[in-house]
Amino acid sequence: MPKISLKGMNLPTSPIRKLSKHAEEAKAKGIEVIHLNIGQPDIQTPTKALDAIKSFDQKVLAYGPSEGSLAYRQKMCSYYAKHNIEIQPEDILVTTGASEAIIMTLDCITNEGDELIIPEPFYANYDTFAAACGVKVIPVSSTIDTHFSLPSIDEIEGKINDKTRAIFICNPNNPTGYVYTHKELNDLADLVKKHDLFLIVDEVYREFVYDGAIHHSVLTIPGLEEHAILVDSMSKRYSMCGARIGCLVSKNKAVMEAALKFAQSRLSPPTLGLHASEAAMDEPLRYLQEVTATYLDRRNTLVQALQQVPGITVSKPRGAFYCLVQLPVEDTDEFAKWLLSSYNHNGKTVMVAPASGFYGDRHLGKSLIRIAFVLDKQKLKESALILEGALHAYPHTLTSKLSQ
Amino acid sequence: MPKISLKGMNLPTSPIRKLSKHAEEAKAKGIEVIHLNIGQPDIQTPTKALDAIKSFDQKVLAYGPSEGSLAYRQKMCSYYAKHNIEIQPEDILVTTGASEAIIMTLDCITNEGDELIIPEPFYANYDTFAAACGVKVIPVSSTIDTHFSLPSIDEIEGKINDKTRAIFICNPNNPTGYVYTHKELNDLADLVKKHDLFLIVDEVYREFVYDGAIHHSVLTIPGLEEHAILVDSMSKRYSMCGARIGCLVSKNKAVMEAALKFAQSRLSPPTLGLHASEAAMDEPLRYLQEVTATYLDRRNTLVQALQQVPGITVSKPRGAFYCLVQLPVEDTDEFAKWLLSSYNHNGKTVMVAPASGFYGDRHLGKSLIRIAFVLDKQKLKESALILEGALHAYPHTLTSKLSQ
Repeated sequence: MPKISLKGMNLPTSPIRKLSKHAEEAKAKGIEVIHLNIGQPDIQTPTKALDAIKSFDQKVLAYGPSEGSLAYRQKMCSYYAKHNIEIQPEDILVTTGASEAIIMTLDCITNEGDELIIPEPFYANYDTFAAACGVKVIPVSSTIDTHFSLPSIDEIEGKINDKTRAIFICNPNNPTGYVYTHKELNDLADLVKKHDLFLIVDEVYREFVYDGAIHHSVLTIPGLEEHAILVDSMSKRYSMCGARIGCLVSKNKAVMEAALKFAQSRLSPPTLGLHASEAAMDEPLRYLQEVTATYLDRRNTLVQALQQVPGITVSKPRGAFYCLVQLPVEDTDEFAKWLLSSYNHNGKTVMVAPASGFYGDRHLGKSLIRIAFVLDKQKLKESALILEGALHAYPHTLTSKLSQ
Repeated sequence: MPKISLKGMNLPTSPIRKLSKHAEEAKAKGIEVIHLNIGQPDIQTPTKALDAIKSFDQKVLAYGPSEGSLAYRQKMCSYYAKHNIEIQPEDILVTTGASEAIIMTLDCITNEGDELIIPEPFYANYDTFAAACGVKVIPVSSTIDTHFSLPSIDEIEGKINDKTRAIFICNPNNPTGYVYTHKELNDLADLVKKHDLFLIVDEVYREFVYDGAIHHSVLTIPGLEEHAILVDSMSKRYSMCGARIGCLVSKNKAVMEAALKFAQSRLSPPTLGLHASEAAMDEPLRYLQEVTATYLDRRNTLVQALQQVPGITVSKPRGAFYCLVQLPVEDTDEFAKWLLSSYNHNGKTVMVAPASGFYGDRHLGKSLIRIAFVLDKQKLKESALILEGALHAYPHTLTSKLSQ
């Protein structure tokens, strides 16, 4: 039998999806599974986008331009201008979700064996994208004690060597919800300039910031034009994950030229998703304001409910729609599986994402889970109760911590 | 300034799209450009698919399953059964076009520096996908004298070494239109079994065969289950290139398990494209029969018109919708550019794909162009006349050949 690749063999299964089989089995037993594990919002897609789909009147569902239509990229420029990001259509390449934007970025800037520094915990799929491109992820740990703020610049600088090609952050952060400060970003900018690296920032949660936090885009940092690569997506912003429309934005001409060649090889981004995305941008600003208010309300509900559960520590996120929760168990991978296979509270249970998969050093996340607050408040309150009951019923709960 | 990757720098620009700038300039001058360069059919997408788009009634445009919905994969099984291909839904992974299916295949079966044997000329983007995955393409030349039939098995076997992971063909072939015989496929099957390699076959043009040619799928070869990987797409079959829906099919469980991990990392195929694709499969069989008849008619028109042009040699294709044409010029890259920048016939010119980009050894394709017969017969006839006029006007035509 012919052999498969090393990366194909060694790749970890997505921590967000690897429990799916157990969830299916629970559902088959008639148990309702509340999905806290995945960032699939229940928020309605903008009416203008849904209407645009319904009125799609082309007779041939054809390829679009590989880089995305000029009309769409011009609209994106107007959108970015509102966020004080000054770019031109030629600085934008439309991609099949942020996923493809990241893969293309890595294809453009790394050679086999190069290294990428990422603060951990980080979005688990970054690991897969890096593996696909033959790049090694070098994690730098952030901790729940500081709400997962940026590790010290000295520590990050200590990881830089000849193989380092870029520092990569997600801001606001998935899975931590941390929003990087102006100073943190400027420090990173100085560091990448000093060592001639790229600074890649995944900003797909740009709009979702709370408690007066201000999001600073990597593209607003003066003098960073040749170093900054922005990864973006319509998925979360307009609750249209299935459109599979994202983009890669950079003022670095060499990057954009190389990226276009990779983009041309895969022909074009999805025509229908792009059509819907273009229409979504005509939605009044109020849509995003209301969505952000909804997430804020849900975050407050979830954090408050979880804070009442003995033995749990919650990191209150100031951005995105995830929060990391420390549980009084030693292995959340086992606990998450048990929640699906062996527990239910009045016929209901929860599916959570064990956080080990968000760490380069998987042991660091062993007592953490990630919860996505993309469901309604009632479900979130219920979920906290289910977790509380489960921690009492779970045979391996560190019971000494329950009374703390 | 931080450096971009070697592959990013060295990647050739798509031969199908690299002349776009010159085409835009010609159009800006008021010249009508007939696009013979790209396989974007003008055929109408099935009504059932267009209707499904219009009646999309979900309120949240959500992610689908990473592997594609079970319902869709079941429909695909029924479709394949009609082609004597016996597979189960778990043997199918839905991808974002055949492009992604090929990239995932290479991610699953190759390590950096591995080799892939492909008969040339080959679809130019295979080169880019291989480069993105760090794989070296080893071409084996086929020639216009044999209508681009499979090079001898001995010659192919001579290229196999420790680094070889797979033999990769496109059947029916783009750009040659060649349909591989039962014997050729069986010989390849024996070869990959002997050397424990994969046999990857891109069959996106499966339906489009002419003159009584029979298409044999790699998945119908007995005993090849662990070696065969099929790449497929809805793009050409249902004239819905913009849907970006393809698939990877294999009975090799290790391949499918690895592929699913890569698929999960990019979340899901485009939801709207999949929705339209599922509906397309309900279209009566007559749709595909009519489309095939249309292409046959166009092929006959094009080949006949080109055969009347002095100095031109046409390879009459028995499948797909491309044909390779040998011109009496030494460098079709220059000629194709000149057609756009310096020539017009009554305000019209043609855009063709120079064939050098379809060769590993680019010199081999220097006198060839690829023409896609995806336009109506009138345009194809006109194109032949434009080419004839152009060859008389072009300063570098090998005039001695015009009288042959």
